[in-house]
Amino acid sequence: MFKVKFLPLDKEIEVVEGSTIMEAAQAAGVYINNLCGGNGVCGKCRVQVINARIHADMHSMNFLSKEEIIDGYALACQTKIDGDMKIIIPPESIQEDPRILLEGMEVHYSNPEKIFLHKIPADPASLIDPFIQNIYLDMDAPSLEDNISDLDRLIRELKKKTGYGSFEISLNCLRDLALILRNNQWKVTATIARRANTWQILQIRGGDAFGQTYGVAVDVGTTTIVVQLIDMKSGAVVGVAGSYNLQSHYGEDVISRMIYACGREQGLSPLNIAVVKNINDLILSITAGKGIKPDDIYAITAAGNTTMTHLLYNLMPCAIRLQPYVPTASVYPQISARDINININPEGALAALPSISSYVGGDIVAGILACGIAERPETSVLIDVGTNGEIALGNNEWLVCCSASAGPAFEGGGIRCGMRATRGAMEKIIIENGDVHYTTIGNAKPRGICGSGLIDCLYEFSRNHIIDGDGTFNSKTENIRIIKKEGEAQFILAYPDETENGYELVITQSDINHLIRSKGAVFAAIKSLIDYVGLSFKDITTFYVAGGFGVNLDIRKAIGIGLLPDIDPDKIQFVGNSSLMGARMYLLSAQVAARSVEIARMMTNVELSNYQPFMDEYVAAMFLPHTERRLFPSVDY
Amino acid sequence: MFKVKFLPLDKEIEVVEGSTIMEAAQAAGVYINNLCGGNGVCGKCRVQVINARIHADMHSMNFLSKEEIIDGYALACQTKIDGDMKIIIPPESIQEDPRILLEGMEVHYSNPEKIFLHKIPADPASLIDPFIQNIYLDMDAPSLEDNISDLDRLIRELKKKTGYGSFEISLNCLRDLALILRNNQWKVTATIARRANTWQILQIRGGDAFGQTYGVAVDVGTTTIVVQLIDMKSGAVVGVAGSYNLQSHYGEDVISRMIYACGREQGLSPLNIAVVKNINDLILSITAGKGIKPDDIYAITAAGNTTMTHLLYNLMPCAIRLQPYVPTASVYPQISARDINININPEGALAALPSISSYVGGDIVAGILACGIAERPETSVLIDVGTNGEIALGNNEWLVCCSASAGPAFEGGGIRCGMRATRGAMEKIIIENGDVHYTTIGNAKPRGICGSGLIDCLYEFSRNHIIDGDGTFNSKTENIRIIKKEGEAQFILAYPDETENGYELVITQSDINHLIRSKGAVFAAIKSLIDYVGLSFKDITTFYVAGGFGVNLDIRKAIGIGLLPDIDPDKIQFVGNSSLMGARMYLLSAQVAARSVEIARMMTNVELSNYQPFMDEYVAAMFLPHTERRLFPSVDY
Repeated sequence: MFKVKFLPLDKEIEVVEGSTIMEAAQAAGVYINNLCGGNGVCGKCRVQVINARIHADMHSMNFLSKEEIIDGYALACQTKIDGDMKIIIPPESIQEDPRILLEGMEVHYSNPEKIFLHKIPADPASLIDPFIQNIYLDMDAPSLEDNISDLDRLIRELKKKTGYGSFEISLNCLRDLALILRNNQWKVTATIARRANTWQILQIRGGDAFGQTYGVAVDVGTTTIVVQLIDMKSGAVVGVAGSYNLQSHYGEDVISRMIYACGREQGLSPLNIAVVKNINDLILSITAGKGIKPDDIYAITAAGNTTMTHLLYNLMPCAIRLQPYVPTASVYPQISARDINININPEGALAALPSISSYVGGDIVAGILACGIAERPETSVLIDVGTNGEIALGNNEWLVCCSASAGPAFEGGGIRCGMRATRGAMEKIIIENGDVHYTTIGNAKPRGICGSGLIDCLYEFSRNHIIDGDGTFNSKTENIRIIKKEGEAQFILAYPDETENGYELVITQSDINHLIRSKGAVFAAIKSLIDYVGLSFKDITTFYVAGGFGVNLDIRKAIGIGLLPDIDPDKIQFVGNSSLMGARMYLLSAQVAARSVEIARMMTNVELSNYQPFMDEYVAAMFLPHTERRLFPSVDY
Repeated sequence: MFKVKFLPLDKEIEVVEGSTIMEAAQAAGVYINNLCGGNGVCGKCRVQVINARIHADMHSMNFLSKEEIIDGYALACQTKIDGDMKIIIPPESIQEDPRILLEGMEVHYSNPEKIFLHKIPADPASLIDPFIQNIYLDMDAPSLEDNISDLDRLIRELKKKTGYGSFEISLNCLRDLALILRNNQWKVTATIARRANTWQILQIRGGDAFGQTYGVAVDVGTTTIVVQLIDMKSGAVVGVAGSYNLQSHYGEDVISRMIYACGREQGLSPLNIAVVKNINDLILSITAGKGIKPDDIYAITAAGNTTMTHLLYNLMPCAIRLQPYVPTASVYPQISARDINININPEGALAALPSISSYVGGDIVAGILACGIAERPETSVLIDVGTNGEIALGNNEWLVCCSASAGPAFEGGGIRCGMRATRGAMEKIIIENGDVHYTTIGNAKPRGICGSGLIDCLYEFSRNHIIDGDGTFNSKTENIRIIKKEGEAQFILAYPDETENGYELVITQSDINHLIRSKGAVFAAIKSLIDYVGLSFKDITTFYVAGGFGVNLDIRKAIGIGLLPDIDPDKIQFVGNSSLMGARMYLLSAQVAARSVEIARMMTNVELSNYQPFMDEYVAAMFLPHTERRLFPSVDY
């Protein structure tokens, strides 16, 4: 056993010889970035070993400079412990405090409100037909002339009040019924939940308990989990909270997590436990101080990609990863929340938005609901540039979708100094006369570059001819910020004295290549899908863009690098977290819930991995802005 | 603490001062008859204290002769322990060994088969559309062209094979789905169960597991529980087992049990535990040795009166007992068997036949199904002379029912030497020239008189003018068997040297009065109900008689005492355990199951406790055969 001490957190732990630094950190409760799930390919877990010699491996060489290696820098996931160690975790490798994230994300929540509001019919009451409802009943006491059973009396009254045709009751609820009715002089509030073709009576409470019923909408993202607490009477958002997905300990993207879940015995369980803990913690933090008990929450709706929904339900996702890419379920059964250990009312129900295919999930169905794409005759596109890059296209008559395997580059993954859109991220970058001007989230010292900053970089590099159309640094451009280090050209965005950790922030040639592949995949997917249905860009009324780039995405620059098609920017609408919005709509409207299954069923999934036109488009899109220059007439560099 | 020893079982226990002998017996695992639930009114728990003086109380006086009291006889439920005691339990007070009961009851099972057979359509396949089914599926493996989710593939195939429109799956079953499909090359057997408007997928097993699926039909009687094991493929009865309802420790009739359940904290739980233990024990005993595992059982249907069904579901029955007699439920939710700790497959479902009112239960609905009353245009009557005495009347267009509070006299309850139809019961009695001729069940020495014997007695007493029309012993008749003891006339049916316990078996004046009240209530209920719908006896095609009298019920004698109406005996059909039959039909036929709810819903319950014509009829029927002699023209005494 060796002693390992983590600085500056001053946490110590003993581990067996051969453990990796990452494993030691996890055991010590120290959260180090782990985007690739410990495969040594994201380079986000760099740490500095200060009192021991470590062996730099092949992976480390790719992500660390010679000086860094000499200074003791190493990748935590690749470095084995062979003696007592003191390890410094540099700021950029520490996983964000959820508090910071939440601040960064609250901006997202306000945006979708606008979309929500412009979608709903003029009369908001027509929307509020929620998944769970409180019905107050003032019943006649039984008499010899009218001595039907308590349950029949309850259902007779519920039918009268709601107009719904069919009700079921759980055994638990039935057991208390006789007593509650009699102790409350036949005045009770019934909590009912929609379930397939019937309504489930979840709880009977004495008197008029109206207004004490809440629901929860969850965006189960690969990277972040966001929970909204909803008053089920008014539909109002009572609170919101977000945190990093604790599953990131087991890999940052869905592929690494599937490998973890399927590669070892009991591999699934820690992933399920992690996401359930996320949701329970968020519910607790959101209800605390508001005088709301988790017991007052009767319904929870979750929107996530297919893998995330499988992990939430504790379903093996193994066949998702391998050809022919088959999920266990796409329309998920409505279950009791306690079946997956979610701490709400014991009778509370959980529903997940249906998926379309292995790589187009309930988050996309939620986005289509939120943007109202399937409700209008005009054809729209939804582009979710997340880890995967999903595209949906259609109108009220037809829908098609695909996923692009774009990778997490625009969320900072695989980019040397990339990071998520949180405090310290360079979010806006302008290069003028060779000088770099930037703003960071929270006006902090820069720690890295988030999605919107990376888009800006590619655009500004192109506009200033710092890079050529194929992305290589232009050897004719003279700029003191362009340097060559260990055989690779890179551009210095911020010098050591500007940054939080005292190391320079750079964009390397391989970062640029990576971003071009990623933007190329997204654009090729959009183009292929629109071609697939025989349309062109001009036939699309609105392009909705969802994703975690950061809220300051410059749409003109996203067009400028060829990520988004060259159309009127007014037709492009950034919608932020449309997944959460859709989950809330599902919670609040029976019609929306039924519609979600219809949408999932009517949508045609185009499998791009097997589709030659996509491969051709992908190759053509690997240029800035595009090989076919005529597709981007407005781009002026 | 005092030591109490029970003989001849030789069981000893220590109890605190003031415990009753009954309580001590229960604690020692000694089963003493307890028809009235310990209220001192049935007189069935007589024991003999041989080494201590006990205090005879008021209750004991009514049931024990002076010699018996001198000999140390006492009622176990009324006698407190105030010192060490040795207690002999006489044979008539020992609760039957279930083995004996089963022998006695197996005769019952064979009878209903005949009814069953004459009800089903010519093609038996049209009946077998069972509650649970095994469907073998040989699916195509997924491909890139057909990569719908595993669940969608399964449901697509199930729809193709069954023609059913809608399926649901439990979370447990979904969790194993991906693995089972792939490990078995997409060849699996799905076990599905009907549930409201959909089918529930309960289990997926690899390969062709057809034929390994069983169901259980249960008659949850107040006195006895009978379980049939059914092969769900063929519909065949694989086994049958019965036992006394263990709830009899807490009272022999439903009223005493409701008082027990509602009169103390946690009173409901022991009653529920008792009946669940009954069912689990019977399932174990029936499957053992047949190579069948309880896990192979996927469905269980239960028919019982309203109180028994409430106790099975662990629902408070308290409002059933009190005006206006309201049960918690009449149509019971289908539940998971494990929710009430029934040990079948963990995914197995349990359904109960619906009740009509507090005193007309699922056993009557089962009887109507078994006799096909609601399926034919001819009007029939079902008479269940059990503890309660329920009557149903109708045809395929309308149904009415009532309950008569007839008491358990014809099951031996409240009758000095009455007993159930088990070994040693006098079941056939003829009195010729003052001599008594009888046969007993199992040709054993007589231990008491069962229902058919009691009917014979009343008839033979009347025919031989031993009693008058009002039931009093005829003072003019000379018969050495008529004696007066402690002020009450009684008739000796068997002398001490003939009987098992060495005491004479008698019918007392109060026994006769009791039987007349009971038969009067049943007949008045039949008559009132037929009058209520404006019909007369001649309009009835068939009278079906169900109940535990014993299989040798002499229908002419039942008419002769005015229990059954004076019609062509060929129109009267003894159907035995029609409750069990109906439960099995529910298990085997979707149509029957749906029909059971329709029957319960279409049936009008006539509340006799509030109905003046019944009171008048009751008074008129308190005569042998009846006050209105013209109603019984065929009766020749």
